[in-house]
Amino acid sequence: MAKNQEKTLRVGLAGLGTVGAGTFKILQANADLITRRTGVRIVVTAVNARNKGKDRGIDLSSVEWVDNPIDLASHPDVDVVVEAMGGENDPALSLVKTALQNGKSVVTANKALLAHHGVDLSRLSEKHNAPLMFEAAVAGGIPIIKMIREGLAANNISGLYGIMNGTCNYILTTMERTGESFSDVLEEAQKLGYAEADPTLDVGGGDSGHKLVLLGALAFGCQPDYQNLSVEGIDRLSAEDILIAGEFGSRIKLIGQTVKLEDGRILQMVSPCLVPRTSPLAHVDGVLNGILSQGDFVGLSFVEGRGAGEGPTASAIVSDLMDLANGVNGPVFGIPADQLQSSPSASRDDWTGEFYMRLVVQDRPGVIAEIAPILRDHQISIESLIQRGRSADQPVTIVIITHQTTGKNIRLACQEIADLPSVLDDPLTLPILKI
Amino acid sequence: MAKNQEKTLRVGLAGLGTVGAGTFKILQANADLITRRTGVRIVVTAVNARNKGKDRGIDLSSVEWVDNPIDLASHPDVDVVVEAMGGENDPALSLVKTALQNGKSVVTANKALLAHHGVDLSRLSEKHNAPLMFEAAVAGGIPIIKMIREGLAANNISGLYGIMNGTCNYILTTMERTGESFSDVLEEAQKLGYAEADPTLDVGGGDSGHKLVLLGALAFGCQPDYQNLSVEGIDRLSAEDILIAGEFGSRIKLIGQTVKLEDGRILQMVSPCLVPRTSPLAHVDGVLNGILSQGDFVGLSFVEGRGAGEGPTASAIVSDLMDLANGVNGPVFGIPADQLQSSPSASRDDWTGEFYMRLVVQDRPGVIAEIAPILRDHQISIESLIQRGRSADQPVTIVIITHQTTGKNIRLACQEIADLPSVLDDPLTLPILKI
Repeated sequence: MAKNQEKTLRVGLAGLGTVGAGTFKILQANADLITRRTGVRIVVTAVNARNKGKDRGIDLSSVEWVDNPIDLASHPDVDVVVEAMGGENDPALSLVKTALQNGKSVVTANKALLAHHGVDLSRLSEKHNAPLMFEAAVAGGIPIIKMIREGLAANNISGLYGIMNGTCNYILTTMERTGESFSDVLEEAQKLGYAEADPTLDVGGGDSGHKLVLLGALAFGCQPDYQNLSVEGIDRLSAEDILIAGEFGSRIKLIGQTVKLEDGRILQMVSPCLVPRTSPLAHVDGVLNGILSQGDFVGLSFVEGRGAGEGPTASAIVSDLMDLANGVNGPVFGIPADQLQSSPSASRDDWTGEFYMRLVVQDRPGVIAEIAPILRDHQISIESLIQRGRSADQPVTIVIITHQTTGKNIRLACQEIADLPSVLDDPLTLPILKI
Repeated sequence: MAKNQEKTLRVGLAGLGTVGAGTFKILQANADLITRRTGVRIVVTAVNARNKGKDRGIDLSSVEWVDNPIDLASHPDVDVVVEAMGGENDPALSLVKTALQNGKSVVTANKALLAHHGVDLSRLSEKHNAPLMFEAAVAGGIPIIKMIREGLAANNISGLYGIMNGTCNYILTTMERTGESFSDVLEEAQKLGYAEADPTLDVGGGDSGHKLVLLGALAFGCQPDYQNLSVEGIDRLSAEDILIAGEFGSRIKLIGQTVKLEDGRILQMVSPCLVPRTSPLAHVDGVLNGILSQGDFVGLSFVEGRGAGEGPTASAIVSDLMDLANGVNGPVFGIPADQLQSSPSASRDDWTGEFYMRLVVQDRPGVIAEIAPILRDHQISIESLIQRGRSADQPVTIVIITHQTTGKNIRLACQEIADLPSVLDDPLTLPILKI
């Protein structure tokens, strides 16, 4: 509680892109506020970035420039390294490792780094008593790491369900609003800067997967396990899917979910899902992120906010710096690395619930008579079925909503259905999230 | 980070109602989890409640019973007192004060106590280096205190807007769903245990006010100021108001809002408001709570969850205990008590925006011609106007949506309108929340 005597926390900032520059700006703009709330002045003393000459709209004249990021890890005027470079390997990995080895705290926004090297880094952090914090790595503007690690810490968490990629959510929201195709909206999003030139990591679901793995580690006290993750992206969705989902009272969202099954296995899955409009996740629009968690005493908790961008991500980084200034120092994933469990994992096969199944078939009588027995043979019963697009010689879309079944039944049935001559495309199947 | 050697945090629990019994249950049920996450065993060593013999479904055999709650404050086997008695004065006040004076930490769910005595207790906490924590006092299941104090701490907060009373939200949601009157739904809620026998503090807005004052203190670094609070409850709302609001694309919610105005004054206001369906607050239904905050870097953040009840409130209390076990120790309202500002306050007069105005008038030609000049004279322009209920000799409801104006203009205009002979009831005016 010794907040009267003003101390200084010296930051070495690696990377001056969106995240790094934003961090610099907020530390300057809200310096007085930050000191009032911590009793500590948090100042950037040294920086590194790829391009020294670039104008970033920030005044670096009072800050030392180092030419190699790794130098920040041993810099005498640096107490904490902010790693805002990104990338799961070097130079980010070496920088973080070396900083921790030198007893310097680290704050990072790097989800890929932690998803792949989280356990090792957690061990290193404990060994050298150097905290490693990563609020900015998941859903920037939403303090979800703190919420799971501390706010809801008294609860056994049974599941987390999140919209954690703003690019995908922007694309899906726009497809719904305009009726345009995935590829048209993606192109537009790229022009607007909402999607990367290579959008694979976003629209393929990998980015959501990185974040999901970190949330699961915190929630379940298990090792971040990027290997056992079922990932599907949004690239196969059509505007028609979104329209039909709407007729069923649902919206389609890219959901990352990590759920503890009754047998103790942990399911980690990124997949577009139908989300009924009664769920708060259904109302997360545009570039926003939203995360729903379920705890045994607290019940459902939902948070929504901006998931990326300069301001929100920098806000998260600086909240970690303020925690450090306040003396917070705990294990990276909430419990010591050696106690993180290596939980047996489940797969999409184990997901249980209702499914949306979309088939594109030839327009001729008898197709449904071919499909229905296959579903029956895999214990899949039909809750409703609609057929669309009957114009001469055009393919027809059939959408089936199933009763509760398993991902495995769906997969096996779809393998057989795909082999039918009248079925023109691989079936698309989307879990229906009832939460 | 010394989480390997198991220590014990000994809890003295005052009050065994919903909150106290829930705390006891979660500490037992999730004991292993809690120890794994803190390295500390958190155990209840002593309890007090009004009725020793009552069956609460918990086994108190291993716990010492003290006959006077104040004894917990000096009990040698108590490190932290959990105050779950409620009430802004004694015995809760004396218990908390004495515990702090004795250097014992305190965790409380008591919003009234802190709203009225927050500054004094904050000083006492600092003087004796004894943390006082209150996550459970506001929106039980939502870790909003931690979110404002830590998660969003890097931001200048410009406003907080919350649905913080589950009873009111249940009543409004039910009125909307069934079309029943306020009094009918209240009676039903009382039978179901969702409303107290004396519902004044809930439906009158006072309970929301207590919570709002605490959030404002944290967000703005000002002293909790229960005196300068504009409070209106939900008892004047009709099912027709809710219906008409729906036609304007809005729902009616009891909103507590605390906003920093451009001149630096702080507005604290509890009032039913129209909330457009585009706002996440519009989708907070039933007994849930939801809070929207706006920060300069992070933008809008929204959280939703269960606001009361045994599980959520106990979850919040135990999260505070776990923070204490982890060594968290900061000023009660985020900054030292002496630095809490005594900000000049604004009132409902200063609220700027659009309003919903409902008038009940005699059904005769010319009434609107009497009202329109009054609005004009107070710089209030009409965005839309509808008239309802024209059946012979029955009063007519007129609803006006205004363009942007101030609470003061609305108040002055309504004073004149209420004096018109053809106006049968005091006008009802509801701010329209555009966030």
